[in-house]
Formats: sequence, C-alpha cells, structure tokens
Amino acid sequence: MPTYVYEFAEGNKDLKALLGGKGANLAEMTNLGLPVPPGFTITTDACRYYLERGQLPEGLDRETADKLSALESRMGKRLGQPDDPLLVSVRSGAPFSMPGMMETVLNIGLNDESVHGLAAQSADERFAWDSYRRLIQMFGKTVQGIDGDLFENALESVKHDRGITSDVELDAADCKRLVQLFKDIVAQQTGGGFPTDPREQMDLAVKAVFESWNAPRAALYRRQERIPAEAGTAVNVCSMVFGNLGMDSGTGVAFTRDPATGQQGVYGDYLPNAQGEDVVAGIRNTVPLSDLEKLDKSSYDELMSIMATLENHYRDLCDIEFTIERGKLWMLQTRVGKRTAAAAFHIADQLVDQGMITLDEAVTRVNGDQLAQLMFPRFDESAERQRIGSGMNASPGAAVGAAVFDSATAIARAQGGEDVILCRRETNPDDLEGMLSARGILTSRGGKTSHAAVVARGMGTTCVCGAEELQIDVANRTLTSPDGRVITEGDVISIDGSSGEVFLGAVPVVSSPVVRYFEGEVHPDAEDADDLVRAVHRIMSYADSARSLATRANADTAEDAARARRMGAQGIGLCRTEHMFLGDRRQLVERLILAETQEEQEAALASLLPLQRTDFVDIFEAMDGLPVTVRLLDPPLHEFLPDITDLSVRVAVADATGADAQHDRRLLEAVQRLHEQNPMLGLRGVRLGLVVPGLFTMQVRAIAQATAECVRAGGDPRPEIMIPLVGAVQELEIVREEAERVLREVGDEYGVTLETPVGTMIELPRAAMTAEQIAPSADFFSFGTNDLTQTAWGFSRDDVEASFFSAYLEKGVFGVSPFESLDVSGVGRLITTAADEGRAARPDLKLGVCGEHGGDPASVHFFHKAGLDYVSCSPFRVPVARLEAGRAAAS
Amino acid sequence: MPTYVYEFAEGNKDLKALLGGKGANLAEMTNLGLPVPPGFTITTDACRYYLERGQLPEGLDRETADKLSALESRMGKRLGQPDDPLLVSVRSGAPFSMPGMMETVLNIGLNDESVHGLAAQSADERFAWDSYRRLIQMFGKTVQGIDGDLFENALESVKHDRGITSDVELDAADCKRLVQLFKDIVAQQTGGGFPTDPREQMDLAVKAVFESWNAPRAALYRRQERIPAEAGTAVNVCSMVFGNLGMDSGTGVAFTRDPATGQQGVYGDYLPNAQGEDVVAGIRNTVPLSDLEKLDKSSYDELMSIMATLENHYRDLCDIEFTIERGKLWMLQTRVGKRTAAAAFHIADQLVDQGMITLDEAVTRVNGDQLAQLMFPRFDESAERQRIGSGMNASPGAAVGAAVFDSATAIARAQGGEDVILCRRETNPDDLEGMLSARGILTSRGGKTSHAAVVARGMGTTCVCGAEELQIDVANRTLTSPDGRVITEGDVISIDGSSGEVFLGAVPVVSSPVVRYFEGEVHPDAEDADDLVRAVHRIMSYADSARSLATRANADTAEDAARARRMGAQGIGLCRTEHMFLGDRRQLVERLILAETQEEQEAALASLLPLQRTDFVDIFEAMDGLPVTVRLLDPPLHEFLPDITDLSVRVAVADATGADAQHDRRLLEAVQRLHEQNPMLGLRGVRLGLVVPGLFTMQVRAIAQATAECVRAGGDPRPEIMIPLVGAVQELEIVREEAERVLREVGDEYGVTLETPVGTMIELPRAAMTAEQIAPSADFFSFGTNDLTQTAWGFSRDDVEASFFSAYLEKGVFGVSPFESLDVSGVGRLITTAADEGRAARPDLKLGVCGEHGGDPASVHFFHKAGLDYVSCSPFRVPVARLEAGRAAAS
Repeated sequence: MPTYVYEFAEGNKDLKALLGGKGANLAEMTNLGLPVPPGFTITTDACRYYLERGQLPEGLDRETADKLSALESRMGKRLGQPDDPLLVSVRSGAPFSMPGMMETVLNIGLNDESVHGLAAQSADERFAWDSYRRLIQMFGKTVQGIDGDLFENALESVKHDRGITSDVELDAADCKRLVQLFKDIVAQQTGGGFPTDPREQMDLAVKAVFESWNAPRAALYRRQERIPAEAGTAVNVCSMVFGNLGMDSGTGVAFTRDPATGQQGVYGDYLPNAQGEDVVAGIRNTVPLSDLEKLDKSSYDELMSIMATLENHYRDLCDIEFTIERGKLWMLQTRVGKRTAAAAFHIADQLVDQGMITLDEAVTRVNGDQLAQLMFPRFDESAERQRIGSGMNASPGAAVGAAVFDSATAIARAQGGEDVILCRRETNPDDLEGMLSARGILTSRGGKTSHAAVVARGMGTTCVCGAEELQIDVANRTLTSPDGRVITEGDVISIDGSSGEVFLGAVPVVSSPVVRYFEGEVHPDAEDADDLVRAVHRIMSYADSARSLATRANADTAEDAARARRMGAQGIGLCRTEHMFLGDRRQLVERLILAETQEEQEAALASLLPLQRTDFVDIFEAMDGLPVTVRLLDPPLHEFLPDITDLSVRVAVADATGADAQHDRRLLEAVQRLHEQNPMLGLRGVRLGLVVPGLFTMQVRAIAQATAECVRAGGDPRPEIMIPLVGAVQELEIVREEAERVLREVGDEYGVTLETPVGTMIELPRAAMTAEQIAPSADFFSFGTNDLTQTAWGFSRDDVEASFFSAYLEKGVFGVSPFESLDVSGVGRLITTAADEGRAARPDLKLGVCGEHGGDPASVHFFHKAGLDYVSCSPFRVPVARLEAGRAAAS
Repeated sequence: MPTYVYEFAEGNKDLKALLGGKGANLAEMTNLGLPVPPGFTITTDACRYYLERGQLPEGLDRETADKLSALESRMGKRLGQPDDPLLVSVRSGAPFSMPGMMETVLNIGLNDESVHGLAAQSADERFAWDSYRRLIQMFGKTVQGIDGDLFENALESVKHDRGITSDVELDAADCKRLVQLFKDIVAQQTGGGFPTDPREQMDLAVKAVFESWNAPRAALYRRQERIPAEAGTAVNVCSMVFGNLGMDSGTGVAFTRDPATGQQGVYGDYLPNAQGEDVVAGIRNTVPLSDLEKLDKSSYDELMSIMATLENHYRDLCDIEFTIERGKLWMLQTRVGKRTAAAAFHIADQLVDQGMITLDEAVTRVNGDQLAQLMFPRFDESAERQRIGSGMNASPGAAVGAAVFDSATAIARAQGGEDVILCRRETNPDDLEGMLSARGILTSRGGKTSHAAVVARGMGTTCVCGAEELQIDVANRTLTSPDGRVITEGDVISIDGSSGEVFLGAVPVVSSPVVRYFEGEVHPDAEDADDLVRAVHRIMSYADSARSLATRANADTAEDAARARRMGAQGIGLCRTEHMFLGDRRQLVERLILAETQEEQEAALASLLPLQRTDFVDIFEAMDGLPVTVRLLDPPLHEFLPDITDLSVRVAVADATGADAQHDRRLLEAVQRLHEQNPMLGLRGVRLGLVVPGLFTMQVRAIAQATAECVRAGGDPRPEIMIPLVGAVQELEIVREEAERVLREVGDEYGVTLETPVGTMIELPRAAMTAEQIAPSADFFSFGTNDLTQTAWGFSRDDVEASFFSAYLEKGVFGVSPFESLDVSGVGRLITTAADEGRAARPDLKLGVCGEHGGDPASVHFFHKAGLDYVSCSPFRVPVARLEAGRAAAS
C-alpha cells in the first residue's frame, strides 16, 4: 500500500507528480529550513483512487489522523480546540497549474465554540468572527456548491444596512450577524447545514478538492492543454498563519529578480494587516516591497536572506508568497517565476556569469517563442503613446492603421493602399477576406481560441482579441474606450499583439535589435551593443554548437535565400518552383495548359526553360556551397488559370448581353476540363509529372543546366531534386529514371559531372507507411508536414481553420492547431515510422522537414528526438529553429 | 553453394519458385513416368545471381556441362554432333506467367555442319534447312536483339521471287538460301555473326533468357501485377522432338475437361506434320483432338491415359501441349488449366462428387470474381445474335442501346429516356458525363487500363474496349464491322462486357439463375434446378459454414435492407443517413442551412426528426434481430445546396438582364459562406456534429425513438450508432456523451432500456495511428476504406479516377485501382495497426469494414487475415463476400 500522506518535511521538489507543484515546493522549502507553517500533503495517488472508485483508499483516514495528530502535537493545540483552536487551510495543488479547480478553503477548524477560543487567543473578536464568516462562505461555495452570489448579497445587505461600502469597515457585530446569515443560507440550500465538526470540515474539503479535478472547466482545460486526465491533484493541509492580526502583520508577493527585465533587486508588493485573498481582491492598494524594510526591518532582512537562499537553490528567478504574523515571517509558496521574453535571456545570461548555471542549462531557460517575440517589430517605447484599452495578446506584432468596422470597408481601403485595423465584436468565416486585407485585427469578444485569434495566428497577422473594455459599435462605426473617448471609422489606432494593448493614433514602430543582430547590422561585440543582443548572441552561439539538427530555410528567390543565409540557414530545404510560374510567366503556363498539340506543348515548355534556368542560377549563387532542395512543380495546373465561377459568370453575362466572349469561352473549356472537386486531392505533384509530358523533364533540365553553368563559373552549386506528393515508390522510380537521364545528358553537354541527389517529399500517409519500399529509390526524405497534417486528419487548412478550428480549440479537441504545432501522436507517429523504416532500408538516407512546423518550438524538439538531419522553415523562423534545436540537444 | 541445374527427374511441381512453373511441371511429369523429352532446368537462383552481379555464378558452367553430358549420353548423341546432332530448345519459365520476356529458342545445336547430319538422320533435307533457318531467325531476334522485320522481309522477298505465299511451300533450296540471307543479316547487324559453336549458342540463349527478365515490357508487367522483381526466371533446356517430320508426326493441345463447361471428355486440337509454333501462327487449320484416334490410335490411347493420370494427379483440369514425332508421343508441357466461371463451379462440384477433392479444397477452386460474373445479367444464349466484332471484356454486364458517338448526344438521348451505348475511338475526362449517361461503353482503342475501362469499372457500367476490328468514325457517326456492315447513330447494338463481344440489334437479356437462387426464387433442391445453381449452393453453403468473417450489407432503405437479407447479409454495416435528407426533404435541409436564428434552426431539425424516425423504424423492422449500423450525417452541407457556379451564373445573368433574383441571391450568400476549396477535406462528418448545434442530437433521438417504438411493437431492433470522420478521441468523447444522454432520455420516456453501441468509423490515417486512444471510447471500429484510401494516398476518387488512373495503371504505379482492391501495403497497414492496437486497448472491440472493398475478393482475404469481425458491402456483392470469406478461412 502506498503512502498517501506526506509531512512537508518528507517531500521534495522532484515529487511534483505525487505531491503537486505547490506541495513539492513547500516540502523543498521546509527542508531548506525556511519558515513554512507546518502541514502535510495528501497525494495524487489518493485522488486517483478516489476518482476511480468513488471512495477514499483504505488507510487514508488513519494516515491523515496520524499526520494531523503529529501536527497538533507540534503546534501544541488541536484542530478546532475550543479554547485555542488549530486552524488549517486546505488547498488543491496539481502537478500542472489548473484553473477551474477548487483552490482553497481557509480557517478550517472554526465553529461556534472555537471561534471564541480564537477571539481570546488573538485578543481580537472582530478577527475571529470575520475568520469564521469567511470559512462558512468559502466552504459553502466551494465544498457545498452553493451559489456564491447568495453570500455576496447577504454581505451587501449588511453593509447597506450599516451604511458602509468596504468589508474592512465591518465590525465584530457585523461579522457575528454575517455568520448567522451565512449559516441560514447553508441550511436552506443544503437541507443539512454547516458542519461543525472540524475533522469533518477538513475531510469534506479534501474530497471536494479531489472532485474538483473533474469539474467541467478543469476537464476542458486539461483537454485543451493535453494534461492527462489521470494525473489527479494533491491536497495541502497547512496550519493557518494570519497576516490580518494588526499592523505588525501583513502579506505579500516577491520576485527574486525583476520578471520584466531580469535585473536583480527587490521586486514585489506588500499589504500590511491583510490576508492573501485581500491582495487578490484589490480592496486596498499595496506598497512596494522595499517599504517593508521600514515597517519591519527584521522580517525584511529575513525575507531578503530567504530570497537569496531560494535563488541559489533553484538557480533561477523564484516568485514567492509570504505572510508576516505579528512580526514572524512565514513562507506560503514559491515556484520558478514567469518572466518576459527579454528577461528570460537576461537572466539566463546573468546566471551563467554568476556561475550558477552552465551554458547547457542556460539554453534550456529560454525558448523559441520568447526569441520570436523579441524579433517582432515593436512600438517605440520612448515615443509618447495614448493607451485606450487592452485585450488578449492573440497574435504578436505591432500594427498601425485606420480603424474599420466591416470586411468590405477593410478590403476597399486596403486596395486603395491604406493600412487598416479591422475592428469587430467577433469575427466569423464571412470576415475572412477582410481579415486578409487588414494589418491588424481587434475584437472585443472571445479568447485566444476565438475565430479571430485562430485565423490571425494562422495568417501571421497581429491580433488583439477579447478587449472587453472597448465598446465596438459596428452599426455606428465607432470604438469607445473606458474613459469615453470615441474612435470613428478612419481614425488611426495602433495595436500591440504581444502585450494586448491598444493605442490611439500611430505609435512609431521600431524594428527589433535582435533582428538587426541576426541580419548582421548590429554586432554583439560592438561597444554600444545592447545587453539583450549580447545575451541572445551568447545563447545562440552555444545553441549552434550544441545542436545536431541542421537548420535550413524555405526560399523561392535569390533574395529570400540570401536573407535566410544571413539568418543562419545552412541551406534551402524547400525551393518551390511554382512561384516561378506566376507573374508575367502565367501566360506561358496558360499556353502550356491550353496546348492542343504536342508541338504547342513543347514550345510552351521550351520558352519556360531559360526562365527557370536563370532563377536557379541566381539561387544557387546566393547559396553557393550550401544545399538547395528544389521541389518540382506541385500545385494543380488550374491554379494558374482563372476561377471557374468568375469565368462562367463572365461568359454567361457576355452571352446574355450579346458581348463577345471568344477567348473566355476557350479558357472556360480548359478550366472546366481541369476543374476538380478537391484540387488538393487531385492532379498535382508527381502526378502532374507523370501525366503532363515533358514538364518535369524541362524542370530537371533547367536545374541541371543552371548547375553546370555555376560550376563553369567556378561556383559550388549543390542542388537536390525533390519530387512532391509521392505515394508509391513506382512513381518515384519513373521520375528518377528520367531525371537521371537528363542529368547525364546535360552533364555530357557541358562536360561536367552532375551528382545531384534525387529525393522525395513524404507528405502522404501512404508514403510514410511504405517508407521502407521508397527509401531505396530516394537519396533523401523531406517531410511535408503541412500536407501530411492535411491528409492524416483529412482536413484542408484553407477550408477548416476558418470554419471549425475555433470550436475545436474551445471544446478541447485540439490544444493547439495541428498546423501550428505538430500533432505528435498522429502525424508524428507517421514521421517516426517513416524515418525509422526508411533508415533501416537505407542507412545513409538524409531526413529533413520542410513546412512551417520546422520553425515551431515544440515540433523542433520532436524532430530532434525523431533523429532527423535538418528542419527547414521560413527565413525569419530560422533563429527560432536554431535555438530550439540547441535546446533539444542540451536537454 | 546451391545446386543451379536440375535434371527434370530431380524436380517436382512444388519447386515452382526455384524451377519456374514450366520446369516444375516437366519434372512432375517426368517423375510420373510420362514421356517427357529429357532435359534440365537452370534455376531462378542462377538468374538472380546473374542479374545482381552481371556474371554467371561460379560452378554453373560446370554443372551445365555435367547435365548436358548426362543428357548426351542418354540420347546417344552430342549437342550439335555433325553426323547426328542432339538439338535442344531453350525456354524461359518464370514462377509466374510473364509476357514480355524472351520465351523460346528452338533447334539449338544446328550449324553449317550439323545441318547435314540432321538432313541425313531425318532423311529430309528441307526439314533440316528449314530448322536451321528458324534457329538463326529466332536466335537473331531474341538472343541477338535484331529487328525481326529484317528476317520477315527477307522471307517475304524469297517467297515473292518464287511466286509463293505460304512458308510451307518453301523447298530445301529456298531454305538454304534463307539460311544464307539470315546469316548475312546477323553479320551486318551484329558485326560478329551467328555463333556456330552449339554450346555457345546454348549459353548465349540462357543469358538472353535471364536478361529478358528485366526487359521493359516484363518490368512493366511485373509492376502492374505486383510480381516481385527479385523472383527471377528459370531456363529449361530440353531435347528437341519434331512434329513436322511427316504425316506420322504432329502437335496439339488438350484439356482434360471442357474449360467452358467443366464437362469431362476429349477437348483439344491437333495439327499433323507441324510444330507448335505453326499452331500458334495459325497458318493451317487444326482438327479436333478426337480425330487423332483415327490418325494414330496408339498415340491417342496413350494420350487419353496420360490425361487421366494427370487429372488424377493434379486433381484438377489440366491443359497439355504434346508432340508426336514419327508415331512417338511426347509431353511438352502441362499446367492446371484456365476455365470459365461456370466451369469452375461445375468442376469443383464434380471433383467433390468423384471424391477427388474435399469441400475445403472445392471452395478454394472457385473465386468471388467468377461468382460475380455468374451474377451479371447475360445475353440469352438461345436467342439469335449477329456478332459484328469483339474487343476486350473491360467491365462486365450485358448492355443494349442506341449507338451514339459523342458525350452530348449520349446525355441528350439518355435524358429523353433512351438507352444508349457510347461509342468512341477512346475516351478522355471530357467524356465523363456522357459515360455516366450511357448503358454501355464501346471503344476501338486502348486496353483494360484505358480511361474507358478504368472509369467504366469504377462506375459499374458495361464496357468493351479496344475493339480494333470495329472502325469508329466519330465525324460521320458510324461504326463499321470487319465485314463492312455500317451502324449509324441511333442503330441499336448490344455489347457483352464479360466476353467482349459486340452484336447488331437488341439481344434479349436474361437474369442470372444464380441471382434468382440468391434471391430465393430458385431452389437448389428443386427437381428442375440448374446444375450450376446446385453447384453454387453446395459451395456457398460450405463457405458459410467455414468462414469466420460475418458479412453485412450497405443499405439505406428498408427495400435494400430486405434484399441484402435475402442475399445472406447478417446485418447492415453502413446505413447512410444523408440519403434520407434528399428528395422532398431537401427543402427542410435548405431551411436548416439558411436558418439565421436558433429558433429557425431548431424548427428545421424538429421537422426532420419524425421523417428520420420513420425511416429507421422501417429499416429496423426489415432487419429485425440483426445489427443495423447507422452512420450520422457525413457529407458537407453544401451538397444539399445548388452548385456555386450555376447559382452565380444565374444571379449574374439575372442582374445583367434586369430579372429578379431575390431568392437565388440569398441562397448564393449561404452557398458562398459554405463553399470550400476541398469539401472532402472540409466541414463534414463529426465536425458537422460538433459545429451545427442539435444536428447529431436530432439524429440520435430519431434512432432512439425508432428503437423504442420497435421494442414496444415486440420487435428486436439492434441499432448501432456510428460517428463518421473521427480523427481524435476527443471528438468521439463529446459526441458519445451527448448520444448517451439522449438515449437515456428517450429510454426513460418510453420506459425501455436502450443499450445502443456507439462506435466510430476509422477512415482517417490519424484515427488509425491513434486507435489505442480511441478504442476505449468506441464500442466498435468500422473501417471506411474509401475515405481511408483517399486520405492515405491523398487523392479523391471523383477527381483522379478519370484524370490519371489509366496512366498510372499503364505505367504500373498501380496493379489495380486502390479503390477497387485494397492497397495492402499502405492502407492495409493502417488498418492492421488500428485493428491490433484498438483490440489491445479494448479486447471486446468489434471490428468491421464498410465500403466497396468489403465486396472485393482480394480485400476480403486481407480483412480475414487482419482478424476483422465482419465486412459490409453493397447487397449484390454480399454473396461474393460470403464466398471469399469462406475461401479465406479454408485456405
């Protein structure tokens, strides 16, 4: 039988799974000799047992009694002892932070008798009765499930009767009256009443914590965050200490460093004569923690010393909750604290300087999301700004534009060259086009999983959502701030997608020093270099030296390639050739598609050849000495033709009005012939190569000729030919044979040996499942995670992100869109299967990833673990990938 | 070191992988004491070695020399011995029949000297020189790779000079001249010449056989038929016997039973004074085998006795090639013979009667394709028919209709209620709509993998393709038969997709007696019952008793359900509810989709509820006591709305012409809102259920109410609720929870306990990869192999079958469309993974398949091996599934 109850001194910080985060850290502090109010933790094992079988495990009652009795001996008083009651708090504490669960019941142990004891002992009758009414209120609400408004209403009516507005003005008699009113509410609502037996109070509270694990909001949160339902929660039973026993008491929070900048110093807030919940309720204003030095020097000094101890021990920024009871300092909680992106880099850098952590650890103390945040352009902090409100930071960036209130206006103004911010109460799929036209999106409703947030993140557009304090009136085309300022359509506003803030007017935007560093414009060794740049440089350099995963970029032009190289790309992992078919060249593609004879088709291909060759020469030169993976044409041909509905309308209207539609009619015939119900699942990729004669041959020839020309010019071009959408090895074999023939032919022509690898995308589940068959014909696999996600899940990004992803995120079907972060258990399993079996069949098989997942932090870790050789992502995400690859290797 | 050369007497019929089919059967006959010309077989091991390393294995030369020398001793003459040459044939013989490979070189051992010996020994100078020129011709063409036309042209010119037309008219001098001419051709083409050393002739021929394994046509065939490239071929070296040494010689083929009907008797053809290749060339007419009794009673009797021996030994119909050389019978080949579908059942039935095979074996001697063929309606054999030509039997059935020559005419006439046969030189995707309107499709070009054939099979439309003898003139709208009859547009023709025949006029069609048997209209025990029906009944009964796989049907109406039950369905595996939303009810669905308020939406759902309930009651009654798996709504909602292009055109034309388009405009807005680029990958299946409030709830309520009503009426309804398109267990959990709530609610309402299983389709790769997570929430998995094939391969059946499947079949990417027969290595692997891991997580998980693969023979075997509980297919395929499930269990 496992041990179900641990005294604080019996645990430690590594037992989070068993004791929860809070319990494990209380144990750790206890063992560090810090002043933690004694108590014990009931384990997650007990919770799991209870939830599975509906009853507490045998032995728990006995263990609890033993630990309680030890606690009582230690404290010299019994739980609820009438003349001098031991009071305890009961708090939930799961291994993961979990909103939606019952959190805390304070003052357990009070009843009609012990309240007198507490009054006598504390010599404060008001305090005792206030504590009692708080117990009944919290217990009634969280343990007995009574509507909290009933208590609030009673409280309001008492205050109203007494003509006071604040809780602190209640006197002892008021509190006594409230106790009676609250007991009446409980009796009425439960039929039973408020339990007077202290042990029963405690046991009921423990069960309520266990049960709150399965509360709907907690269950939903778990689904969203992919927290296993069977983790369970622990319960901490802790002897009460009181910060509200007079001016020599108080409560506060503290950070061992500034969480905004990482600076060492004294950061925190203190509230004299108050309990923690008063701080949360915001009834009174706190004072800066530094003021405590004047109020209670000895407690302050002790706190400083404890903070140093904690930072040394945790070797990181810690945040702390403490209470001072009549001059005695008590530590109620600590944990490794949250921090801003910049602070994370500063702290990691400083801790290395201080010899507290190694660079290996430092690299794990920052992450790619933080680095990405530092790379977004920001509003100039030195500029004046008029903040008019804030919402949730749904999609980062700094956007400035004219406020518009519907999609049509957004489109019209954007087409006129104006930057716009689309302001809506909330968005729906009808707003999609307007969202695409806008620089930024602002909504007054909905959270980070709302339609606006999901779509904006998908498009990379700055978004602030759920700014409830701003009134958006679409009918009148106004936006009103809490202080009554009215913004009308066309007024310029600025929104900060990283902080969620909204400003009036155009706040100047500055580019990030971190980006300037990556671009090579700022040198970390320069005298005037930013500390942040120095910290980023140090950590990036270490990450580069540590990582085993190479980072490449997706780039289709020489400019993008050059930029990617500056950003640290070690090659191009995806060079899409379809972009070379657009613009002026669309005519040629149209000719190719409309060709009715072989001659016409060949002529169209022949005119494309030199254009493609030139493109490749430019890219190979930009990436001289580094690999460039060129993907042969992938998208369906009709993407190069007009839309079937537009064209049909044009032809029908021309017919109805007697106008000429000769060319359109011919085009329409071709478009109808090529029309597909599901083009994503149609004639594209390698299928085009096998069905359209000469197409892939022309592309391979252009690559081969470009390579040969670069070699002749003394360069070191390293192209790799990639075949898209392969589902069966036979497809690859056929294309590969032809490609090798062309390479030999061109090589002979130029007198150059072309040893160009030919590989395949793995972007269809079938390709993944038959990787063992495919590998012998492929020099490399490149996982196309976007298509692989689409086919594995059976949804198209274009179609569904707007129509049901927000519902899915809200219902917890996804924790995050699988297009943002790789779905490890489904898509990831296809990848590991293909990687393992491909390598088994061909040990020298090179494995990479192209697609935006290559720049997503969590996904990079997965790719590292899967043993891939490289990831490839957009140039701007290359630093993120480098950092995360380093973190993955270091952790 | 393995043995590379086997004397015939050293092998047996079970060594096919090593000796090839031909070699193994020659060995078997030799060991049966039958008169096989002595010889030996060089193994596939030797072939593999040669192909892998480009040289013959060490020791092969020695072994060959030993076996040859043994053969020479036995025959009393040496290979090519000048005065009395031993001549041999060298034939390829792979483990699988393989068109496209080099097949045979006869008369090896002849040269300028030994030809005289042969002339002397045979006392037939013409024979000797004719044999010699044949050797040079065959050797030149197949071993030395010389264009065969060169020899044919020389032969023609000699005949022309001599004023003769047939080869048999050549005299000895002509043959001598041809030898010289042929040697000149060889010298000119090869630079070397015809090798005169007999052993060198033999060795070169052996290598040529090996190399022909990798000839393009052979490689393509292997790709198409999924024959492993590493199987290799064996080579048979056999002493020559001659059927062309006079009227006491000859050659023939024979069957131990009639391959058309299975009747025992004497079936075959005989050609006196001829070699096998003359029979193939069709130069002279053969005589019925029975005539041999008069020509050569002793050989005839011996042959009859051998045939009895072979049938007893192989316990099956055998086909045979034999040669009589001057009164001595020689067996050149035997194998288990091909037969018609009806014959297969007759033979299996008779062999059981004769005690030669068990019923377990009998069931493996027939197959589902044969049964399906017997179920198609057929042309009445007793009716008069005017055959005007034939092509390939591309898609079975008997179709009668007016000949039309383009798609538009086909559509127009079909809309007028006329049955049409679409006649085209070949079809392409533009013809699709016309093909859909036609009863049958006839083309003059293209094989079984042509566009016409692939699409017709996909649609289940009768098709004869590649009828090259029929001239189809689309411009003049005529079809001309070889004998000059001209069919003009509108003339009625009849095409037989099972035999490939084309008839003039309307041939009467009769339904199949086998279908009448399955429908219960014909009883196998009736006095006048058809023998075929009796045979089918016997084998089906045994298959039913043997199989472990249950067979269900896909049916959406009570009529289909009742029919399926008659066909032997043990339940409904897929009852699609979307069909219940069509017809008159489309209006209600439109109301649901256009609803702008919750009330409107609820009203629309409420009006659908009683209609759905009635549908379910009817189906549950038809399947009383058997399971009915009801799939909740799957297709995208816009499928119930007009096409976006049509509607846009209507609105635009109305606008252009000033007409009213109020309703259309409103509809268009909804259609635009719901429009998806890739509806197959859009808002459908469980996603609809999660996004459209109340939809699934209404459907579950209808099922629950129907169930309760049937129970009340004393019935035994067994519904199962199936959720489509689940990709993540969270989706299923949410829907399941709601379904269970509704079931309890309705159960309480009716006072009935509803224990309705809730399961999921597995039709997305992600569902398959996460089956272990999904299984605990699913009472059953039903594999939706159509969608699973679409997503695993990333192509949509609608889009690609018409556009590139024929190219893929021709290039050998597929052996068969993966929509016709399950792709075992890709899709199949997803299924076994899901089945195994689902069962591991939940041992009582029921596993089934719905989708047409459930009625495909090869797929049924796979499902049996994968351990599934049932397959479900269209009612008409249920007997096929029953038979194949029995075969799978018996084999």
